[in-house]
Amino acid sequence: MARAAETRTADRPARHPSTEAAARLARSAAAVEGAEEVPGWLADRRRAGTFRVERIPFDRLEKWHTEAGTGDLVHETGRFFAIRGLEVREEDGRAWSQPIICQPETGILGILAKEIGGVLHFLMQAKMEPGNIGTIQLGPTVQATRSNYTRVHRGLATPYIEYFLAAGRGTVLTDVLQSEQGDSFLRKRNRNLVVEVTGEVEVRPDWRWLTLGQIHRLLAVDNLVNMDARTVLSSLPLRPPATEGAPDATDAPGVHSDTEVLSWLNELKTQQGRETALVPLDRVDRWRRTETEIAHTGRRHQRVVAVSVVAGNREVTRWTQPLLAAERTGLAALVVRPTPAGPQLLLQGLSQPGTFDAVELAPTVQCVSDGFSDLPEPVPFLDLVLAAPPERVLYSAVLSEEGGRFFRRANRYLITAAGEDFPTELPDHYRWVTADQVQRFIQFGNHFTVEARTLVTCLGSLRDRGARWNA
Amino acid sequence: MARAAETRTADRPARHPSTEAAARLARSAAAVEGAEEVPGWLADRRRAGTFRVERIPFDRLEKWHTEAGTGDLVHETGRFFAIRGLEVREEDGRAWSQPIICQPETGILGILAKEIGGVLHFLMQAKMEPGNIGTIQLGPTVQATRSNYTRVHRGLATPYIEYFLAAGRGTVLTDVLQSEQGDSFLRKRNRNLVVEVTGEVEVRPDWRWLTLGQIHRLLAVDNLVNMDARTVLSSLPLRPPATEGAPDATDAPGVHSDTEVLSWLNELKTQQGRETALVPLDRVDRWRRTETEIAHTGRRHQRVVAVSVVAGNREVTRWTQPLLAAERTGLAALVVRPTPAGPQLLLQGLSQPGTFDAVELAPTVQCVSDGFSDLPEPVPFLDLVLAAPPERVLYSAVLSEEGGRFFRRANRYLITAAGEDFPTELPDHYRWVTADQVQRFIQFGNHFTVEARTLVTCLGSLRDRGARWNA
Repeated sequence: MARAAETRTADRPARHPSTEAAARLARSAAAVEGAEEVPGWLADRRRAGTFRVERIPFDRLEKWHTEAGTGDLVHETGRFFAIRGLEVREEDGRAWSQPIICQPETGILGILAKEIGGVLHFLMQAKMEPGNIGTIQLGPTVQATRSNYTRVHRGLATPYIEYFLAAGRGTVLTDVLQSEQGDSFLRKRNRNLVVEVTGEVEVRPDWRWLTLGQIHRLLAVDNLVNMDARTVLSSLPLRPPATEGAPDATDAPGVHSDTEVLSWLNELKTQQGRETALVPLDRVDRWRRTETEIAHTGRRHQRVVAVSVVAGNREVTRWTQPLLAAERTGLAALVVRPTPAGPQLLLQGLSQPGTFDAVELAPTVQCVSDGFSDLPEPVPFLDLVLAAPPERVLYSAVLSEEGGRFFRRANRYLITAAGEDFPTELPDHYRWVTADQVQRFIQFGNHFTVEARTLVTCLGSLRDRGARWNA
Repeated sequence: MARAAETRTADRPARHPSTEAAARLARSAAAVEGAEEVPGWLADRRRAGTFRVERIPFDRLEKWHTEAGTGDLVHETGRFFAIRGLEVREEDGRAWSQPIICQPETGILGILAKEIGGVLHFLMQAKMEPGNIGTIQLGPTVQATRSNYTRVHRGLATPYIEYFLAAGRGTVLTDVLQSEQGDSFLRKRNRNLVVEVTGEVEVRPDWRWLTLGQIHRLLAVDNLVNMDARTVLSSLPLRPPATEGAPDATDAPGVHSDTEVLSWLNELKTQQGRETALVPLDRVDRWRRTETEIAHTGRRHQRVVAVSVVAGNREVTRWTQPLLAAERTGLAALVVRPTPAGPQLLLQGLSQPGTFDAVELAPTVQCVSDGFSDLPEPVPFLDLVLAAPPERVLYSAVLSEEGGRFFRRANRYLITAAGEDFPTELPDHYRWVTADQVQRFIQFGNHFTVEARTLVTCLGSLRDRGARWNA
């Protein structure tokens, strides 16, 4: 064996580990057959269990209560999450307040990976969440808050959590701390993990091994692949690292170096003068509380509601919890263009009230809080992406946000190719970023909104379809 | 010209821009002559002006006051910075409170670079700060809070600030948001910039062009190169990027891939269960306020003091301000070892009360708050680095921390080579990290404590001395 290794080294240099990873992921992405069985399997899992979600008045919440003096909605343990008020003051004097989810713990979103027949497979879950459109969607192997997996609220143990907790249990393919919706969470982050194992793994009834190609095909279906799965997949290194000697991407016209892109982002972070402070939920301006909801008087924004849940197959669990209910379907759209140096994505630097690090990279259009019609101010590129002719629409589907915190919240995710007539002048907070840069920056966490990460995953799903733009 | 460029492309592939940058920095690092003139020049600048710093009682502060109801020390504009109280609760129940500097603005630490005679030079400043040991130290071209450079407190305009504000004024070599002392600042960050220009630059009396080699030599002198210069220099890409085909560093025994190192860091961040909250400065436990200081009753930790300052040469300015006064000299020590894949640094994941992102990479030993003798608990590797024989001490100097916030705060910075007998078992929060990884991670900001960044700069300063370990 030692001898073979030496020969190999002499014959050709050892491949960079990320070149190897990209090749293995490409093989998995090429295995698309069998994807069509998955929607039926999810329907079976739905039928196999009892799932009932009902809106209830706040005073029927159990283990949750309205805190005296603040009106905040809190869990009896003081952990899990809480809904409080947030006061936001912009540097130009504009100010508002809103409900916000405070969840200081870092949860785990983990996908287990394993080679089966020489092809990487990912253990995906038929995951029920109370806010889900369609009740059950395709999720990662594990999605658990720290309170969940340390069993603060005494639920069942989280299956497969041991693969993501024990040091050295498998090979970590990706592990990144990522933010979630900055319009709804205060500085929330989850740990996005893909862990590869080689040994035997018991497959429980609600789990199934899928190839990357199968998951990619399923991303074309509305409300099927859940947000947690999409964000974890966004950090997979699908692209081999740029090789020395290849045409230098940063020499191409209109291409910025990593330093230039990060410098532009730092400029936006430095300029950002927004201040935020927690306030009692009872004191958020222009919000009205009834027995069943806390809603903005203008009927914009999400409402705070409460639900009771009955779920399970052999073992049935019941719980109640608050959720944020979406008023409208949002839009997250990405404009891409082919260049000799590879595809580029048009991204904006966006600051939302709960953004972890001041400003994050967001899609070309991110209208996810108040829908995308009837907005008080014009949004750059909104009309352009909505008017894209069919041949330039590379991806379009309605996908749901986390059903454990949001009640039927969904956005249309859209990827369009820039036409010849696409504006060459960009607003200061926009930049064309290469797909290679996106992959590098995602590995360091805190750089992309969760909506941008969904679109990065959707863009990756197009690669094995041989689309022309995807040079 | 176009023709020449084509020939060049045909002859050999375009060099990666960071290979080019590393080569230019190496040329600058090799130019060491003339460094010996700089201490004399700094002494001249000191003699050319009037510099008087005096401790004063708090009630003689001007434009600063003790806020009614909280006891916080605040500036009349409400900007600049403030000294408040911080309550810290560890997950295991331990709790304490302490003074903390709140400075939500992001300031600029910028160095201007320019090729002179084909060699990169850096415009360094003879910078006076009230807390400096020796009054004047060598600083970056610009060090300015946002309040400074937007002239909130109506000082003089900051010279050279235009090179760091105007978009497109020069080529950005590095631009990174970095944290400062997590024991003294609440989530503070500064923007560390190096900007290269080609045009004429007026050199004012307190500024001087120096090569990287000259600055490296000056780092060997106690209290000469200030903290702001050291942190900016830490992000310079001195090392060429690892090339495809070279021995794969991550295949070497004891070497972790980028993913493994970042995953270990995420594990530490996720485990970290410390909670902090601002409290009135009047209510910090075990601290006693007199007319002239706020001090810990145990005589540990830094004291809050006030100073009056008279400074300048032709134009003399006067101001008063609070500072944190250090009680003891700290120790920040880095253990390094040579490996076939290049040098490795032994780093720890450290969480301090004000750390921006939960946990940052810190030196092997970071005892900078309460000195390094007489500590209540044993510190890993402390005895080992203090007992290192002279032939293994690669670097040792006492360097000052920021004189604009700290009154005569200094640490001994030490780099030692691991001996054959160095422990192979490490505590869970320690890892060997390659010098290449350090360079990559530093580019993304928020990964290294300011003490670790000083040591990275000091380690870089040893490269042009041909040290054996620095393979």
